[in-house]
Amino acid sequence: MSGDLAIRNVRILGGPTVDLVIRGGRIAAIGVGLAAPGIPALDGKGRLLLPGLVESHTHLDKTLWGLPWRPNSAGPTLKDYIENERRILREVTVPIARRAGGLLEACIARGTLHFRSHIDIDPEFGLAHVEAMLALRERYRDIAEMQFVVFPQTGLLIRPGTAALMEEAIKLGVETVGGLDPAGIDRDPIRHLETVFGLAGKYGRGVDIHLHDREESGVWQIERIADFTAATGLKGKVMVSHAYCLGQVPRARIEALAQRLADLEISLMTSAPADTEIPPATWLREIGVNICCGSDGIRDAWSPFGNGDMLERAMLLAYRLDWSKDEMLAAALATVTDNGARALGLHDYGIAVGHEANLVLVEAETIGDAVVRRPAERTVIARGKVVAKDGKFIDSRL
Amino acid sequence: MSGDLAIRNVRILGGPTVDLVIRGGRIAAIGVGLAAPGIPALDGKGRLLLPGLVESHTHLDKTLWGLPWRPNSAGPTLKDYIENERRILREVTVPIARRAGGLLEACIARGTLHFRSHIDIDPEFGLAHVEAMLALRERYRDIAEMQFVVFPQTGLLIRPGTAALMEEAIKLGVETVGGLDPAGIDRDPIRHLETVFGLAGKYGRGVDIHLHDREESGVWQIERIADFTAATGLKGKVMVSHAYCLGQVPRARIEALAQRLADLEISLMTSAPADTEIPPATWLREIGVNICCGSDGIRDAWSPFGNGDMLERAMLLAYRLDWSKDEMLAAALATVTDNGARALGLHDYGIAVGHEANLVLVEAETIGDAVVRRPAERTVIARGKVVAKDGKFIDSRL
Repeated sequence: MSGDLAIRNVRILGGPTVDLVIRGGRIAAIGVGLAAPGIPALDGKGRLLLPGLVESHTHLDKTLWGLPWRPNSAGPTLKDYIENERRILREVTVPIARRAGGLLEACIARGTLHFRSHIDIDPEFGLAHVEAMLALRERYRDIAEMQFVVFPQTGLLIRPGTAALMEEAIKLGVETVGGLDPAGIDRDPIRHLETVFGLAGKYGRGVDIHLHDREESGVWQIERIADFTAATGLKGKVMVSHAYCLGQVPRARIEALAQRLADLEISLMTSAPADTEIPPATWLREIGVNICCGSDGIRDAWSPFGNGDMLERAMLLAYRLDWSKDEMLAAALATVTDNGARALGLHDYGIAVGHEANLVLVEAETIGDAVVRRPAERTVIARGKVVAKDGKFIDSRL
Repeated sequence: MSGDLAIRNVRILGGPTVDLVIRGGRIAAIGVGLAAPGIPALDGKGRLLLPGLVESHTHLDKTLWGLPWRPNSAGPTLKDYIENERRILREVTVPIARRAGGLLEACIARGTLHFRSHIDIDPEFGLAHVEAMLALRERYRDIAEMQFVVFPQTGLLIRPGTAALMEEAIKLGVETVGGLDPAGIDRDPIRHLETVFGLAGKYGRGVDIHLHDREESGVWQIERIADFTAATGLKGKVMVSHAYCLGQVPRARIEALAQRLADLEISLMTSAPADTEIPPATWLREIGVNICCGSDGIRDAWSPFGNGDMLERAMLLAYRLDWSKDEMLAAALATVTDNGARALGLHDYGIAVGHEANLVLVEAETIGDAVVRRPAERTVIARGKVVAKDGKFIDSRL
């Protein structure tokens, strides 16, 4: 694949109609009536052009995508969810390559080209998920930009051997060090954070911590995460995922903390759940905290919901927060584009000359229209090559 | 159109594979390997067969469907929303027939065949919306079952002349008497309810009241609605729409009231908003309160959201309430099928011999799969005739 393509007659983020010329997978020119002799042309038909969407938090390795419907059997406590999943994943015989690969192709077909996926490690199955996901990344390397977080799903300190597995995973190529409820699950928050930030410091990596712990407990832990971020010089490289607690305490309680999150460039990830509180994103955004969105688990043992459509995730966030004005619908889109790119430290992101041509053409009138309507009619272009059309991934690699 | 059709190889609500024979628009037989000589046949390909979906609360007359994107300019107070809408509808020149008709066709294309739509009346424009909607109903009478509520959007008592317009609308053929925040908007709750229930009693109609009023104020008004329902003998014919207040007070406060709602068969309608509280449907359902779903306004001056897809509405409710188990995903589907039919007093509803053949074929494995995935691949059959396929309405009447 050459990665040469002229895209005619598109509106970048709803702007005026222009052409793009892509050479060698990168945007070579943006303008009106550009000549592009000898390059295949795609008629954009006046559609909206968006940068490739960003999935900031998912768990591809654990999906049951493509398997027969399985009645959800999880809960009610977080521990029950974890144990239920372990049981189910022991039973499933379809390999990760097929489940995660199928889901990855479905996500790409909806326009996502940049992923952060958490990968379970566990003394029971060791690095099996890591190895499968690293192989998957290789298989789609020319299409999707994937980064991984090593994730101690069953606990870190409470599961001896887990920290060593995390270190192994990082040596194998996993970028980011994960954590999970330092107090609620691991029951020793400071040692948990010392371990996570210690690994990050040793290997020069970022940190991404799942935080479900509630109210004051959760807020206190985010304060400690900020402390560790400052102490280890990891400004701009830390994410707190979920952080329901920030929506569970009065705003006055977190005003100073929110300013620290902005200053330390600690991103917050939400999947926009509607059955629990979420961080007060309208206000946090105003003071400069970076908010991005992720699907979290998609069709897995935790939940039957999800389809990997990041336009739908932006809609769910806007719906959750009553973001109805154009400015706020654009803010919702940003959580699955620019903010995600910022959180994941993506270079080269966005529609600009010199950047990789990772693009989604959407049959929509405006950004707001794209977010609320989430049209199925999309053409996905990865590094100058059309990889999906109308929801269908072209040339499956399963 | 004859309304004769054999549908082969479908799974009713996910049950075993069967055939249906439809004659004269009604289900004549359900069984395995049915003979149906001389009748056109449709291969269901093993898909899920659902009854036509029920939209229990929308505002077709006010939609801006099909118009160019209009940035939302509403709010912040309820009164601001109302005034903003009045201003916009004064400016819009595309007639209701085209806007509401376009939306109606889109809803039908997604499988909705039964509608309750509120219609604004107002001293400013009188019965214009009513007349347009009655004409629209006629135009689609052979496909969609539509019932109307006369809705005093700008207030009843505070807008002199409104009660007389409501009575006129009922005489013209509107079925149900509407109300709106008897305390918060009309500022005289008892006279408001006397007027609404008085009209209902005089003409033998049902009642459907929009209730946005919050917390104790809202709960107190629902108690009064129950009083009026009992006093006027309207058991089974009353709906309270929205009723956020029931999710805003402790459960203990509404235990007796909830039992009265069940006993008086007062239905609750929610659009499953995620930015405010909703009635505690998991518990209310257990004690027998009928909960149904509506889209509320779709792409109108109130909100840019909505697409009329009742499977999506069921998903949003399930997502809102963490209904992930199969039983609860079926409960979510029921809010847009059986519960809606019960709330609207539909006869003939459901997939059974003798009933009208109003059906949706969905490319889904189970009810849960249909709700979480909302496949676009649907075939919609109204009274034995295929009226829509794959999201496209056949033979538009616009």
